[in-house]
Amino acid sequence: MTSTGARAAVGSDGAHAASLGAVLAFDIGGTKLAAGVVDTGGVVHAFEAAPTEAKRGPAAAVARLFDLGRRVVDASGVPWEEIRAVGVCCGGPLDRERGVLLAPLHLPGWEGLELTALAEEEFERPATLENDATAAALGEQRYGAGAGARDVVYLTLSTGVGGGVVLGGRLFRGSTGNGGELGHVTVDWRGRHCRGCGRHGCLEAYVSGTSIAERARETGLDAATAADVAAAARDGDPTAVRVWDETIEALACGIVSLVNVFEPELVVLGGGVMRSGELLLAPLRERVRRDAVGPAATARVVEAALGDQVGVVGAAATAFEAIETGAVVPHG
Amino acid sequence: MTSTGARAAVGSDGAHAASLGAVLAFDIGGTKLAAGVVDTGGVVHAFEAAPTEAKRGPAAAVARLFDLGRRVVDASGVPWEEIRAVGVCCGGPLDRERGVLLAPLHLPGWEGLELTALAEEEFERPATLENDATAAALGEQRYGAGAGARDVVYLTLSTGVGGGVVLGGRLFRGSTGNGGELGHVTVDWRGRHCRGCGRHGCLEAYVSGTSIAERARETGLDAATAADVAAAARDGDPTAVRVWDETIEALACGIVSLVNVFEPELVVLGGGVMRSGELLLAPLRERVRRDAVGPAATARVVEAALGDQVGVVGAAATAFEAIETGAVVPHG
Repeated sequence: MTSTGARAAVGSDGAHAASLGAVLAFDIGGTKLAAGVVDTGGVVHAFEAAPTEAKRGPAAAVARLFDLGRRVVDASGVPWEEIRAVGVCCGGPLDRERGVLLAPLHLPGWEGLELTALAEEEFERPATLENDATAAALGEQRYGAGAGARDVVYLTLSTGVGGGVVLGGRLFRGSTGNGGELGHVTVDWRGRHCRGCGRHGCLEAYVSGTSIAERARETGLDAATAADVAAAARDGDPTAVRVWDETIEALACGIVSLVNVFEPELVVLGGGVMRSGELLLAPLRERVRRDAVGPAATARVVEAALGDQVGVVGAAATAFEAIETGAVVPHG
Repeated sequence: MTSTGARAAVGSDGAHAASLGAVLAFDIGGTKLAAGVVDTGGVVHAFEAAPTEAKRGPAAAVARLFDLGRRVVDASGVPWEEIRAVGVCCGGPLDRERGVLLAPLHLPGWEGLELTALAEEEFERPATLENDATAAALGEQRYGAGAGARDVVYLTLSTGVGGGVVLGGRLFRGSTGNGGELGHVTVDWRGRHCRGCGRHGCLEAYVSGTSIAERARETGLDAATAADVAAAARDGDPTAVRVWDETIEALACGIVSLVNVFEPELVVLGGGVMRSGELLLAPLRERVRRDAVGPAATARVVEAALGDQVGVVGAAATAFEAIETGAVVPHG
């Protein structure tokens, strides 16, 4: 399933990539591994994905991930010597500086995995590790929906809810690299239990794909996924409409809180739940305009542009940022 | 009521101030005006406060504010020619760049007031305008409870709830200077009406001094202020204990959300409500440790150090920051 990126690749001769530099980028998700070759223009020269099979443990998954990596470089047409670095992103919490997973919420049992060291040994290039949603935020800001905006809040509504923040064109990371846990802002402190963090009433407990479907089933609706709920709401099923309205309320509440805190130019929404499109976006835009405090209410709310490749493009963006700031000395 | 600052002043001869530079700083609150002379070490050489009498309109208040300013400079012993700039802070939203109040929540009718221009004309020095809680955050980070920490979240629990964030030692302001509206993160989206912003369930609607007393009265308690509620809770009054516990729950919820978002080293809590001290602080510390995600849980929670002078010290800190970054050319 090698494919070109959201933007047109510049051909398989690697000429563009060679002049600008390219990186091998990895995205390690709870259910999916992905690898891609991405140049500094955000062009994806090759992309491949495979199931994580997280339960079989990290060693097997990492071996398959690195295989994917070798295959995408070969398929990309970018010569190996032009691959400047390896960018990896994964669910947090993680220790970015040391390149080690700490207690990844969606990869139980992977604690302590030294991903940066493993990638550096395997590919003989410097490697970076970044929280996946944080990386995606930079990917969207640089190469996706955020192009042009310097202050961007990014939320991904998927199995869980992740987020990242770009301030003044640079990733915001918090004091040890685990800031931007936007899925774990509260919308109701006496609300639903949050599987992600154990608290109550987190945004994630209402608007992740998992939670939307779960809430629908609790009201008696026959829904396996958030898409089923969206479809039933579109068809006017009153129960589905109620669940969907609650989803909008919770998400609008979380977004307005974040807009009040960060006053960004742009809010970018990604993840599978966003396939519902305007059914979510239109009311969210109205809420931000109506409810945010002062000038923050002018923040635009848009859909993410990078689709399934956002993790890989984001991991690449963070590797390029590390090269630009001098944190990483590029290969070659 | 001229007084020395939280730190020892260096004497009335102004020698220290002269060598380091000093600014005239103003804090415009909904109920109180304050003026002070502050040097770059955060030492307050003179301080004076007076009621705002906001309803009499901005012209009368500004005239009295500037009178206060002349008096504190005279009282400080710092020669006028050593006053490098004028720093003003006020409740938002405001237009920092243009130095104009937009729609200050606690000063209805003051819209459009050109504070920076008025101060520059009056004192013949460059002037800066900053949101009061934002300024206070920088004041506490530089000269108060935050000394040493580079990533600080500051919350003030007063008539309303304000906040500010210092990231990497610099004020975080949002894209037009109105970010950091931390009082308007939600803790319960179906919750109490928020007088400050019109939404429901904002942190401010539960943990401002006003809201704490109001919630207590709604349960039948005879409480004029948050201090009355705290005192009754300390005495074991079961109704007061319930109101106090709810205050802790709401505040912990908001703080954990902010800690998850910013992953700061330090959370500094100020404002009148903090006179309740450990009755609030001890359970809050426990909640952050228990509930925040990953390394964010190590954020320390401490009481503000600058007391009633925080606005003036904060306004001065932002004026000094403007001089340091070259945004303002100091007088003399």
